[in-house]
Amino acid sequence: MRIPILKLYDYLLITIQIDLDDQTALQFQEDLLEKIHETGAKGVVIDLTSVDIIDSFIAKVLGEVVKMSNLMGARVVLTGIQPAVAVTLIDLGIYLNNVPTALDLEQGLEKLKQELEE
Amino acid sequence: MRIPILKLYDYLLITIQIDLDDQTALQFQEDLLEKIHETGAKGVVIDLTSVDIIDSFIAKVLGEVVKMSNLMGARVVLTGIQPAVAVTLIDLGIYLNNVPTALDLEQGLEKLKQELEE
Repeated sequence: MRIPILKLYDYLLITIQIDLDDQTALQFQEDLLEKIHETGAKGVVIDLTSVDIIDSFIAKVLGEVVKMSNLMGARVVLTGIQPAVAVTLIDLGIYLNNVPTALDLEQGLEKLKQELEE
Repeated sequence: MRIPILKLYDYLLITIQIDLDDQTALQFQEDLLEKIHETGAKGVVIDLTSVDIIDSFIAKVLGEVVKMSNLMGARVVLTGIQPAVAVTLIDLGIYLNNVPTALDLEQGLEKLKQELEE
């Protein structure tokens, strides 16, 4: 299945509301890059509020999609990382360095606006 | 599977990017009403840009969810109805009376803002 990607003005909004399996995560990576290309979006918010579990593969895919999007000229903010997910990421030694994060979708959008204005 | 519902400020945004089967449509109806209750959202935009096919059952469920949301105090705008879907709806004799519509997500949000300000 595919993760829906919403275009809103210059931004793409994604809420991941299922536990990602490997295939879905890779499909999402491909879809998001395609959508950035198609829409010329300047910013992306990926909301993980509903994600309770994350493994090293998914974390790697997410980390990569952020870097790939940046290469294409779109800033990415990850929002709503749950306590258990934060614990897992650090336990796995995955720090998502240089990836901006925020508490929720609204604050993620604010952060993007600030970054794009700088 | 479930249709993701995004909360953005006072609004809920939904893009339906799969062809709805009966079970998914009913689950969506339940989830949306629950989310309106939970968040106190004042407006809802349901974007149908990616929906190519619609049948009478799905159209009925959509029409109902609009009325139910209105009862709960949230305005609903349907956006991105495709030509083929518009043709099908009229062919089926389903007019979605009194349901505000708009071309895309952005215009749907503008419409909601206007309606809520009135």
